[in-house]
Amino acid sequence: MSATIIDGQRVAADLLRKTGTLAADYERAYGRKPSLATVLVGDDPASHTYVRMKANRARSLGLASQAHYLRADSSTEDVSELVRSLSDDDAVDGILVQHPMPPQVDERRVFDSISPAKDVDGVTSASFAAMALGESGFSSCTPGGIIRLLDSYKIDPTGKHAVVVGRSPILGKPVGMLLLTRNATVTFCHSKTRDLDQIVREADIVVAAVGRPELVQGDWIKPGSTVIDAGYNAGNVGDVEYPTAAQRAGFITPVPGGVGPMTIAVLLSQTVEAALRLRGE
Amino acid sequence: MSATIIDGQRVAADLLRKTGTLAADYERAYGRKPSLATVLVGDDPASHTYVRMKANRARSLGLASQAHYLRADSSTEDVSELVRSLSDDDAVDGILVQHPMPPQVDERRVFDSISPAKDVDGVTSASFAAMALGESGFSSCTPGGIIRLLDSYKIDPTGKHAVVVGRSPILGKPVGMLLLTRNATVTFCHSKTRDLDQIVREADIVVAAVGRPELVQGDWIKPGSTVIDAGYNAGNVGDVEYPTAAQRAGFITPVPGGVGPMTIAVLLSQTVEAALRLRGE
Repeated sequence: MSATIIDGQRVAADLLRKTGTLAADYERAYGRKPSLATVLVGDDPASHTYVRMKANRARSLGLASQAHYLRADSSTEDVSELVRSLSDDDAVDGILVQHPMPPQVDERRVFDSISPAKDVDGVTSASFAAMALGESGFSSCTPGGIIRLLDSYKIDPTGKHAVVVGRSPILGKPVGMLLLTRNATVTFCHSKTRDLDQIVREADIVVAAVGRPELVQGDWIKPGSTVIDAGYNAGNVGDVEYPTAAQRAGFITPVPGGVGPMTIAVLLSQTVEAALRLRGE
Repeated sequence: MSATIIDGQRVAADLLRKTGTLAADYERAYGRKPSLATVLVGDDPASHTYVRMKANRARSLGLASQAHYLRADSSTEDVSELVRSLSDDDAVDGILVQHPMPPQVDERRVFDSISPAKDVDGVTSASFAAMALGESGFSSCTPGGIIRLLDSYKIDPTGKHAVVVGRSPILGKPVGMLLLTRNATVTFCHSKTRDLDQIVREADIVVAAVGRPELVQGDWIKPGSTVIDAGYNAGNVGDVEYPTAAQRAGFITPVPGGVGPMTIAVLLSQTVEAALRLRGE
């Protein structure tokens, strides 16, 4: 038996298509496109590439995008001030602050200067609390994308044991809390966890979200379970040992083409949603 | 072998004594007492009793306390408006909104109208996110009290498997997230969890926080583990079947006299801390 492969490309393409339609409707109704502002601090080439990709994708879908660049030696207050001005700007619907930021910048303070109504990347404390407490708000994009993948394949987390490996503030913690609001029993594992293999062996849903190649070994996977690999490591390798895991799992996300494509699709979808909500829709 | 009994009365008394000293220092320095404002909506006799107890305890410790009562038919906006005015009032250091509130009141919206700087009961989204993400802020009082009990008995959660039974926004979820920031592997269980007994059997630390008498059976307790009973049910019965559990656990909280006394001690301690922080200390 081998697993059903969760086709993130297809699910993301569906979401992008709907988002494009909503963006066109918005423009007809309000005379301007939904608008995403991106903020990038410093000169990291990879970050510049990411931001450019996101902006291009936004424009190709019928969104407007504006890019803001700050010097690598900017202070927390410099970045927060820009973010606050974007939060107050009626021409901006969504704000994406690319991270990591340079070490002198307090990311949490910068994130929390984003208006929650424009937090389409789901990084504010307000958005985190909304995800964790089951209130309305924007999801962190990768966690939100993972939930959409499960929904798309009709995998209901209710009563299942979900094991999340990783506890970062924008991936492990929010995806675990989203699964908890969806009635899974949720275990958070991390670098200090003992007997990780034993815990993963009990999982009906495994979410690997640490960024360590093949940390989750294939023979740990419970037969028939769902394996979500949110890791991406050099050489197109995920956090799960795919070949063996795919023989045991019931559903599995490939790397690439699984979780990856969902992130930007959720970002742009949430941008259009923010634009509509800001108009009171 | 029988468990060491975690003496919440003693730990709470120590914390109250320190809090009283800090309150007296504060009054000498600033010419007024640290001040707690309580808000109570409606006529529930138990809630009136709780609020009166907290106010009396505050005054006996050298804090000022002011009580605000609203009618049972108050709207979300009525309550939020009062809370916002207390948030803006320089004579108020901490705000406690007694809950549950009447069903027509949106508790989340009321809680989030408390300034996080005065959220000494740890109920705002901002406080929740701070607890979950390891940022500075006030803890929900019972979760914060549980962590203090563990610290007081030198029980380090690092690498231990903590199982939290219950997922309420002010008890189960925050205590689990606090344990996660303290490097425990954390499992959240609830009414939809299958095989609860099997999961509890693996736990090095069990936190029972549901309010169902003796839901956690004594023979589920792993020998030598730590049992924290945050449940309180009629007839002085906790959520754990105490007599058997106490024979197996390494450490256990009794009911009453375990977790219970910590809640008000943390509330008053955080009120004095809020007063000091608002003065820039």
